[in-house]
Amino acid sequence: MSVTAPAGFDAAGVTAGLKASGRPDVAVVVNTGPLDVAAAVFTSNRVVAAPVVWSREVVASGSARAVVLNSGGANACTGAPGLRDTQTTAEYVAEQIGVPPREVLVCSTGLIGELLPMGRLLPGVRQALDAAHDDGGPDAAEAILTTDTVAKQAVQIRGGWSVGGMAKGAGMLAPGLATMLVVLTTDAVVDSELADSALREAVRTTFNRIDSDGCMSTNDTVILMASGASGNAPGSEQEFTEALRAACADLARQLIADAEGASHDIAVTVQGATTEDAAVAVARAITSSNLFKAAVFGNDPNWGRVLAAAGTVPEDVAPYDPDALDVWMNGVQVARAGGVGEDRTTVDLTDREVSVVVDLHAGDARATVWTNDLTHDYVHENSAYST
Amino acid sequence: MSVTAPAGFDAAGVTAGLKASGRPDVAVVVNTGPLDVAAAVFTSNRVVAAPVVWSREVVASGSARAVVLNSGGANACTGAPGLRDTQTTAEYVAEQIGVPPREVLVCSTGLIGELLPMGRLLPGVRQALDAAHDDGGPDAAEAILTTDTVAKQAVQIRGGWSVGGMAKGAGMLAPGLATMLVVLTTDAVVDSELADSALREAVRTTFNRIDSDGCMSTNDTVILMASGASGNAPGSEQEFTEALRAACADLARQLIADAEGASHDIAVTVQGATTEDAAVAVARAITSSNLFKAAVFGNDPNWGRVLAAAGTVPEDVAPYDPDALDVWMNGVQVARAGGVGEDRTTVDLTDREVSVVVDLHAGDARATVWTNDLTHDYVHENSAYST
Repeated sequence: MSVTAPAGFDAAGVTAGLKASGRPDVAVVVNTGPLDVAAAVFTSNRVVAAPVVWSREVVASGSARAVVLNSGGANACTGAPGLRDTQTTAEYVAEQIGVPPREVLVCSTGLIGELLPMGRLLPGVRQALDAAHDDGGPDAAEAILTTDTVAKQAVQIRGGWSVGGMAKGAGMLAPGLATMLVVLTTDAVVDSELADSALREAVRTTFNRIDSDGCMSTNDTVILMASGASGNAPGSEQEFTEALRAACADLARQLIADAEGASHDIAVTVQGATTEDAAVAVARAITSSNLFKAAVFGNDPNWGRVLAAAGTVPEDVAPYDPDALDVWMNGVQVARAGGVGEDRTTVDLTDREVSVVVDLHAGDARATVWTNDLTHDYVHENSAYST
Repeated sequence: MSVTAPAGFDAAGVTAGLKASGRPDVAVVVNTGPLDVAAAVFTSNRVVAAPVVWSREVVASGSARAVVLNSGGANACTGAPGLRDTQTTAEYVAEQIGVPPREVLVCSTGLIGELLPMGRLLPGVRQALDAAHDDGGPDAAEAILTTDTVAKQAVQIRGGWSVGGMAKGAGMLAPGLATMLVVLTTDAVVDSELADSALREAVRTTFNRIDSDGCMSTNDTVILMASGASGNAPGSEQEFTEALRAACADLARQLIADAEGASHDIAVTVQGATTEDAAVAVARAITSSNLFKAAVFGNDPNWGRVLAAAGTVPEDVAPYDPDALDVWMNGVQVARAGGVGEDRTTVDLTDREVSVVVDLHAGDARATVWTNDLTHDYVHENSAYST
């Protein structure tokens, strides 16, 4: 399972004492080669954590030998001391595994605005490197969790090679990456150009199409490392991209299913749009409406809130005629041509998975964005996170 | 008080039976002249209710004699039948008071996607017109409420003339107008050009600077009617605009104070911005962050969420250096130069009113946007509105 499913990777997760809960909080994934290809995408937030600053520079070369991850602290908004700590962590890993520091990626997750307890972190890193082995993926997946309730792992097996992955993230999930850390591995023989282009395309239609609470993080990172250990190259760029996309879609769906306090997973599909971007814009307007999300929590098919949210998208972004809009909720056409459709009381929203489909009748493009309902538990979990 | 404080206005609020609760639900405000000047601003949502379509056309002439308002139904997403009902209501009022239908503004508020019960609405309108008198403002203010817990009224008295107002709105409050209906009256002698320009300027810095839940309504309307009954003209355009702005600011503050389920009113001030628009953009990013708002509910000074939200604003919209940002919460500088400031545990957030100040250190412009915290009661009130 997870990041050690492909050949050529060692991993581990250990407890360094960063978390008050005493749960595992430091993970490493080491690429044992022969290749050291790496690619990554990061949060589009302008306020970025120290590990994002560091890892952006590392991955620019297209290669990396290891990633070290910690939960229990985001190392964001920590200034020059925070950046120094990230660098120290990378240098520490590099020294242990005998590579240059510029071959080590770093990820952190947890509370913003606190320096990491380096006196506990570095011994934990050493312990993790000592423990790393070719079946350690599940332990690593455990050690990166914060408010997540379950570890998220995925594997895609193709002819002669595979893709593995792990993810964390349960809140602050929004476009431009969810608040999440994701590490993907593959033993396929790929170069850094293919790794980069395939990763960007896979993320675009998966992690960038989930929006739990509209909040964009300072730490989001998705890393792909390729070991080439299978000795096999993918049959085509498309085949590799599709395997990567499948692994990302699997992990993205798991993130939504474990979103903080959620009781419904909601797929908002917008069809009949002039372009895919227009469909995404309208879908995002709906998935970011607190009123719509609170209604779904109450199993209330309040389709007026769907139309009200769709109406906030500027016409130059998504051309459509408001009097043409159709809306289905769980298969019932509750709105027809911008007005009243079937009786809303016939819609059953009691299942966890909810489907909302909006037809703009303006073109042929479509897109789906996933979100969650707005619940009491979401408010509770996020009302006292730092204290 | 309210819309009948200025001379030249009759008003009433009655119970027509539109609301299941049996509370008042129909109001009228009649301008008895001598002037019939009117101006209005409406929601920027593309999905607009029938009364917005109608009233936009009416006010284009710069004049109106009356406004009829109902709660208990928004008449939005109701298609051609809904538009016909709005027109019928206007014609009915026009007939009773002896003016053309194109002199009657209409406002509706309540659930989207249901036709109004005209058999109950029209007798209620007649009853309201019969009851209208020059001290009926408070009754009208009661009849337009939905989930509001108190009526909102305001008066500004100047030398020889005055401005009065009433407002409703307790949720779906967001820029581009809150979900609200507002009627402002004045007995000053003003022409339609001044009425229009003063109203737009007053709304820009008041109702368009409150954002309760980021949700933009289909029905938002702010109407100004001028009777000229005082016989006095304002000393200057500035004087009139300022009186109007003061009445709007008063009502806007009352809307935030009564927002659905809120336990904190939060003023987010962004200073040191290159332009006022840039300051507003950053403030709005913060006021629309569920994570920030949930933290305030929990009295948790989680300033990392303030910076994370500020960081989502594109650089071309609000230029600033992320490493220069300062943040104060209730007077304590919790972030300094993008990093850790004073000990966050010294911030006391127990009072209802909370102040967040962000200094971008990029210019001299500033703006304040008001919002509320995200609470259990908000989720509860909005989870079963239509059922």
